[in-house]
Amino acid sequence: MTSSFSLTQRLARGFWQLSWLLLARWTPRPLHAWRVLLLRAWGAQVGEGCLVYADAVIWAPWQLTLGDGAAIGDAAEIYNVAPITLGARAVVSQKAFLCSASHDHRREDFPLTSAPITLGERAWVAARAIVLPGITIGAGAVVGAGSVVTRDVAAGCTVAGNPARVVRTAEGK
Amino acid sequence: MTSSFSLTQRLARGFWQLSWLLLARWTPRPLHAWRVLLLRAWGAQVGEGCLVYADAVIWAPWQLTLGDGAAIGDAAEIYNVAPITLGARAVVSQKAFLCSASHDHRREDFPLTSAPITLGERAWVAARAIVLPGITIGAGAVVGAGSVVTRDVAAGCTVAGNPARVVRTAEGK
Amino acid sequence: MTSSFSLTQRLARGFWQLSWLLLARWTPRPLHAWRVLLLRAWGAQVGEGCLVYADAVIWAPWQLTLGDGAAIGDAAEIYNVAPITLGARAVVSQKAFLCSASHDHRREDFPLTSAPITLGERAWVAARAIVLPGITIGAGAVVGAGSVVTRDVAAGCTVAGNPARVVRTAEGK
Repeated sequence: MTSSFSLTQRLARGFWQLSWLLLARWTPRPLHAWRVLLLRAWGAQVGEGCLVYADAVIWAPWQLTLGDGAAIGDAAEIYNVAPITLGARAVVSQKAFLCSASHDHRREDFPLTSAPITLGERAWVAARAIVLPGITIGAGAVVGAGSVVTRDVAAGCTVAGNPARVVRTAEGK
Repeated sequence: MTSSFSLTQRLARGFWQLSWLLLARWTPRPLHAWRVLLLRAWGAQVGEGCLVYADAVIWAPWQLTLGDGAAIGDAAEIYNVAPITLGARAVVSQKAFLCSASHDHRREDFPLTSAPITLGERAWVAARAIVLPGITIGAGAVVGAGSVVTRDVAAGCTVAGNPARVVRTAEGK
Repeated sequence: MTSSFSLTQRLARGFWQLSWLLLARWTPRPLHAWRVLLLRAWGAQVGEGCLVYADAVIWAPWQLTLGDGAAIGDAAEIYNVAPITLGARAVVSQKAFLCSASHDHRREDFPLTSAPITLGERAWVAARAIVLPGITIGAGAVVGAGSVVTRDVAAGCTVAGNPARVVRTAEGK
């Protein structure tokens, strides 16, 4: 668990965290446009009408892409060591955790590993759910509150549980 | 994820959150009686001898009913868009989440939906567990730490897991 | 849920929490050595080269033992009512919860119960996982993110889910 990142990367993240703390963390709830401006200034690709709550935790804005109208809820964690992309109107609810990184525990030095996470249009990751590295969640899919998603989720499906299982298919079965 | 609430409701909750922050959040642990006073002033129905920890998050006190001796632990979240009721001596442990609201993701406008949650006398929702909208947990039932409760729990049962399953019936089987 | 602890114990923990708040909680990430000093001053047995993040929550340092190079991540919770021991290079990731205490809900007075938790060398409890009282996690074992561990984990195994099941044995099957 020694640092897996260069000094430059660590400094960049330090300054980013400080900016968010000083300029965004305490801002009133409706000021989404202001927080989006800040994210864009730090390299995030953010569409129109996105909602990013003040308590959201974004690890690296330069690895974040939000489609139009996408939303990141209160205290949701976007741990984007690898890129994380939300499609248009995708929603990540409060305290959910999109976790793009892990460790290779079979190696002595416990190196960090990472893989991108993608949410399709109108996909919804409900409160306190966890999405593991490399996962793609299809358009309109729903991840139930508190679920842990270990496999890709097909468009239109609802998954729930830990590990998450399909509880409703796109056809409503 | 545009606001589902009227301006009046949002203002009321804003003032409520500010009151808790200024008057309760920083108060020493044993001052339960003071915090209960504050909850009552904001419309909560609270019995005798209740314990409400300073880090508890109560969304709308006017939708909260606590029986005598009920307890809400540290950083437990009472998300009571619909009414939430704890019976006498019911306990919600630290970081548990009683979640009375969801969204209808099949509709374009993603409207908020909600349904009441009720805990019977001496029911116990252990740390970090999640209880979904509309759930009733019977008297003396136990919800294991980290469980996600998707169905009603009968009196005296112990449930655990995600989704939560009965691991011990009222008869001890 | 009346207090299960003597006044002396509660005062000790109050002072401990205050020390951490004043002296450690706000310290920059790399100052692990300073935070380890503070833990040792409060009775923790801490080996060489340990990493303890500033947001880690340690209930009672005098009940904590860390082997060389062990790590406690951001906002991980070490609820050590009973002793908690991490072997050399064991890792507890962010927001994981080692929970050594519970309540006997079958008794009217809901007394606190507790049992020690032990992690072997190089064991890894990933982010947001929960480990229940009395559990031993063997050397080199891995607990997946968000899992809830209800039974001992054998050395070298990977477990995941809620309840946690073996998903990979020490032999890689």
